[in-house]
Amino acid sequence: MSKIVTITKPLKLQSGQEIKDFDIAYKTWGKLNKTKSNVILICHALTGDQYVTGKHPVTGKPGWWHKIVGKGKIIDTDKYFVICSNVIGGCMGSFGPKTINPKTKKPYGQNFPFITIGDMVDAQKMLLDELGITKLKSVIGGSMGGMQALEWAAKYSKMVKSTVIIASTSRHSAQNIAFHEIGRQAIMADPNWHAGDYDAHKTRPDKGLSVARMTAHVTYMSEDSLADKFGRNLQDRDNVTYGFDADFQVESYLRYQGINFVDRFDANSYLYITRAMDYFDMEGSYSQKLSKIFENNTNKFCIISFTTDWLYPTAESKYIVRSLNASTADVTFVEVETNKGHDAFLLDVPEFEETLKGFYKQL
Amino acid sequence: MSKIVTITKPLKLQSGQEIKDFDIAYKTWGKLNKTKSNVILICHALTGDQYVTGKHPVTGKPGWWHKIVGKGKIIDTDKYFVICSNVIGGCMGSFGPKTINPKTKKPYGQNFPFITIGDMVDAQKMLLDELGITKLKSVIGGSMGGMQALEWAAKYSKMVKSTVIIASTSRHSAQNIAFHEIGRQAIMADPNWHAGDYDAHKTRPDKGLSVARMTAHVTYMSEDSLADKFGRNLQDRDNVTYGFDADFQVESYLRYQGINFVDRFDANSYLYITRAMDYFDMEGSYSQKLSKIFENNTNKFCIISFTTDWLYPTAESKYIVRSLNASTADVTFVEVETNKGHDAFLLDVPEFEETLKGFYKQL
Repeated sequence: MSKIVTITKPLKLQSGQEIKDFDIAYKTWGKLNKTKSNVILICHALTGDQYVTGKHPVTGKPGWWHKIVGKGKIIDTDKYFVICSNVIGGCMGSFGPKTINPKTKKPYGQNFPFITIGDMVDAQKMLLDELGITKLKSVIGGSMGGMQALEWAAKYSKMVKSTVIIASTSRHSAQNIAFHEIGRQAIMADPNWHAGDYDAHKTRPDKGLSVARMTAHVTYMSEDSLADKFGRNLQDRDNVTYGFDADFQVESYLRYQGINFVDRFDANSYLYITRAMDYFDMEGSYSQKLSKIFENNTNKFCIISFTTDWLYPTAESKYIVRSLNASTADVTFVEVETNKGHDAFLLDVPEFEETLKGFYKQL
Repeated sequence: MSKIVTITKPLKLQSGQEIKDFDIAYKTWGKLNKTKSNVILICHALTGDQYVTGKHPVTGKPGWWHKIVGKGKIIDTDKYFVICSNVIGGCMGSFGPKTINPKTKKPYGQNFPFITIGDMVDAQKMLLDELGITKLKSVIGGSMGGMQALEWAAKYSKMVKSTVIIASTSRHSAQNIAFHEIGRQAIMADPNWHAGDYDAHKTRPDKGLSVARMTAHVTYMSEDSLADKFGRNLQDRDNVTYGFDADFQVESYLRYQGINFVDRFDANSYLYITRAMDYFDMEGSYSQKLSKIFENNTNKFCIISFTTDWLYPTAESKYIVRSLNASTADVTFVEVETNKGHDAFLLDVPEFEETLKGFYKQL
């Protein structure tokens, strides 16, 4: 299970609000060496969590990056001390909307403070301070994890030796915001949401959260991967039924994705974290071009994108790469050819694994 | 206003069910010539209707193709007799889920028969029979209208002189089905849907239908058009509010699209028509390759796609073009360069208009 550290020092959020005495839940693998120089921080994506590898306590399935992280694997836990914490705003033990507000003895719900990607990173930094970790061999993450990694390299560059940003962006686009807004509206349209106070009503906005998840899930796949995986194949039947049943496999699959998600994720967390992502805009929040933000940065960067990722297309990674080049940073960039879309970083994609392996070998 | 014809003859639907004594609402513009040889049939898209041009009776806005159709316009009503009927399954006067079932004196709702694109076309054919029209100078449509046009060219090829298919496909892909399924699940998740019987409960599943519309709307635009139109611009404010208000213009726009839609469209119609589109698969329903279906077809075809249409990408149009070429049909194909996405056929796109104009000039 996760360990929990309570951060007693105050953290000033980007919104201006201050939080303190908040929990961060995290997991570690491997051993910290004497010089404390073998730490790799993994940042998780929107619906990920600290259960990177090993059995997930809710789903019973292997962690989301069990293929990458472990003994003898690319992120080798025999060699590195690997740490991953649940983001603040999350629902797997860290301070989030599900946390009981000591003043009201009820979950924060919609009284939870608004957080940003930068705030998530600041909280992780406070966790590392607590653990006495002052340097990171590497910070790595995909999707929202990549946004955190980028913030790490900007905010705490001197602490970080290398930064790996996978299938990510330096700012959320209008289309990204649009899809998140659809998900939020689906949740808020569910009468069981009760303006975020569903716990008091002993209910959950499962239907709304399920629609939100279905929508997001389609954006994680590519048109090609949906065609390859399902095409127009029918689900356990020989002919269409002329009805609203899940005639097609793709419908059945999406419904399954929606239904399963609600048992492991909190609807208010979904609202808060998607909002944090929508607010993500490095150049906006630093009031500087990326190339300026990363001026004289001594990190080794590795940027990886996927050809069929239409959520954070290669162009967004290339913008980061061009900016880093302009700031004379040390950058490796690989666009991996795959039909698996955005989620490729979670799936079997040999070229992606080779790229990561190569990068970590020369570190 | 629309005219209405009641079709008394039976129509055997693709599902096997038979309907008769059903209404078709339609509008016409221009004059039928003596030889009845100047008829152009326009087929509307999913949420379109027969109000092609002139003031829409519900929205008060100009019809959806007022730029293309009218006196002296590309589809010149001084020259052609133009007709457009509301599809069966629709909600603007034709036989649809809102129609009162004479047996129960209540709307059909979910007791409405399942219809297909082929059925819509058969119903249009019956309408033309009633009007004594036996030949069509042209059948034209975008999106779902293009699917109907393709069916027209296949089913009633001898009646049709030319077929224009814009931003369309010969079969719905897994991704197309996925987005429709999200919309349907959003409607069905709304407790005001009441299994389609919302009329009896004196309510409407507005929130669900609104989420469905928002989802669909994003698929009608391109990432570029969203970026150009909205980017990360804020809505009537200088800074983000750290809240779930529509901080961003794109959020405000999408909410507006959703809210406005529910006053002009019926949720059950949305379910039935999206289902008809999902079932659309010419080669599947004809059990033949397209090239075979169109063998010896004497139509002049014009196929138009848009570079940034990711709902029905150019590849889908090209498949139709290649098949028509293989069947030695007369085909013009233009991929129009635009950043406006799928909805480009409804917007100001000079190259698109030039293409249409050129095609109709040489007819």
